[in-house]
Amino acid sequence: MNPNSPGTIAVVGSGAVGCYYGGMLAHAGGDVRFLMRADLEKVRRDGLTIQTRGETLKVAARASASVEEIGPVDLVIVALKATANAALDALLPPLLHERTALVTLQNGLGNEEYLAQRWGAERVLGALCFVCLNRIAPGVIEHLDHGTISVGSFGRPAGPRAHGLVDALQGAGIEAKTVDGLVEERWRKLLWNIPFNGLSIAAAGATVGDVLADEGLRGQARALMSEGLDAARRLGHDIPESFADFQIERSFSMGPYRTSSLIDWQLGRPVEVEAIWGEPLRQGTRAGAAMPRLELLYHLLRKVTP
Amino acid sequence: MNPNSPGTIAVVGSGAVGCYYGGMLAHAGGDVRFLMRADLEKVRRDGLTIQTRGETLKVAARASASVEEIGPVDLVIVALKATANAALDALLPPLLHERTALVTLQNGLGNEEYLAQRWGAERVLGALCFVCLNRIAPGVIEHLDHGTISVGSFGRPAGPRAHGLVDALQGAGIEAKTVDGLVEERWRKLLWNIPFNGLSIAAAGATVGDVLADEGLRGQARALMSEGLDAARRLGHDIPESFADFQIERSFSMGPYRTSSLIDWQLGRPVEVEAIWGEPLRQGTRAGAAMPRLELLYHLLRKVTP
Repeated sequence: MNPNSPGTIAVVGSGAVGCYYGGMLAHAGGDVRFLMRADLEKVRRDGLTIQTRGETLKVAARASASVEEIGPVDLVIVALKATANAALDALLPPLLHERTALVTLQNGLGNEEYLAQRWGAERVLGALCFVCLNRIAPGVIEHLDHGTISVGSFGRPAGPRAHGLVDALQGAGIEAKTVDGLVEERWRKLLWNIPFNGLSIAAAGATVGDVLADEGLRGQARALMSEGLDAARRLGHDIPESFADFQIERSFSMGPYRTSSLIDWQLGRPVEVEAIWGEPLRQGTRAGAAMPRLELLYHLLRKVTP
Repeated sequence: MNPNSPGTIAVVGSGAVGCYYGGMLAHAGGDVRFLMRADLEKVRRDGLTIQTRGETLKVAARASASVEEIGPVDLVIVALKATANAALDALLPPLLHERTALVTLQNGLGNEEYLAQRWGAERVLGALCFVCLNRIAPGVIEHLDHGTISVGSFGRPAGPRAHGLVDALQGAGIEAKTVDGLVEERWRKLLWNIPFNGLSIAAAGATVGDVLADEGLRGQARALMSEGLDAARRLGHDIPESFADFQIERSFSMGPYRTSSLIDWQLGRPVEVEAIWGEPLRQGTRAGAAMPRLELLYHLLRKVTP
């Protein structure tokens, strides 16, 4: 066995993302325990079902109603919505032993910091997921597209645990890689999420195609990217201006795609306003960046989201 | 008779504003003809009704279905929505003789310019109306509050015609005054309308009280005012910063007031996006002002309004 193998794993936040990555690891033989509420009985009876690439995988997942029942593990996969982070204060301690690693699969900025401040930076990893998933029924996940996951260590280059997790994910058939600049990767992803997720809600239900087709909104998307680039650079992440142009260009093929935040908003679910807009605004402003468009967008989103 | 008396008057755009000011002038003995469509038969039969200060005024208004029927007059009161300005190209010529004056009671920037470019600046006046009105039934106007009207000449200090119109309005019981800096007055009004009318729609139905109660949105309202102040100053209007603070302060007493643009939007009616946001943005930007918040707000409003 790989000495860096993740060991025993708990998944906290068993939505589509947690069930997909945790389920794939379990299907490949990993020791994965899922904290579940709504889907608990269904998964205990029938396991998890993952529909992926034309196959239907049946995973005999171990689901628990409480973290006490799970007990200490070697790795906790945090896949809650970032809006629910406060719940971690009670959920994580029973899962921890001295060397338990924590990996957040959440969106935006501030989640690694949340974990590091409470349980120590040395055990914190972060991952960016590029994946399209749907939870289509209790315990049933539909994997629509992509799946790449980039794993890094918080505040330092990817260490042995990040490499071990990537090995395990690859062994489970998932395209995975390590990244040394985890926070830079988060900023690169945010350069897209800030304008497109934000304008999709602020323009009252605009798809990516709608934003791009409106010359004015497209210009504002690009201007929001420039504000983000300036902030990222002041924070030490040297992302070239051409990256923003490339992000606009590559988005044209997405057509009537609804961003995840737009879907959340339309379904009346919480939107990760602080992780995607608030924290980048605060960090950028502290670093001396002027972000007037992001500021307006952030305060509008705070007002119009539940 | 006052040599500056407005003489014969036509009202184009017989909504609440046109009917109120035109109706009050008619009630005081002015020769006023109203261009009407929907309310024509009703007003021909029963006249106009103005409920004001506990009184119900019955005005035997002269209503016409066409400008040709009205023919040339000495003063045209333009009270259409600014979004309908293109209609003036056909409506105004039959009303004009060589010295006919035109006074626009419309909101925002660009309306005097529209008239001046087509029919000559020397005959153009503008007026700002501070009034709360409702058209509660065909031909029936409810005057709720205020009523002050400021009249100026376009591109020059208030001339004899502006004074003559103010005299006539005062004679009709309306609080009226001349202003020498018409465009500066428009900017002063816009400093309130840009943030409050704009955020009321962009925040999906926020009242003035809602905007002020949300610390973030209140800050954005003030920041939008600063952008407008900078633009106004670059355009030669020396409005002090304290005016913006005063505008915020005086708004607290308005409570759950819905801005006129919000009401238009909620009723599915056109919103004067170009006059209130587009034209100030264009004029300010041309003068070298940076208006990033207004730019974002403008493009969002263009997208979400009919």
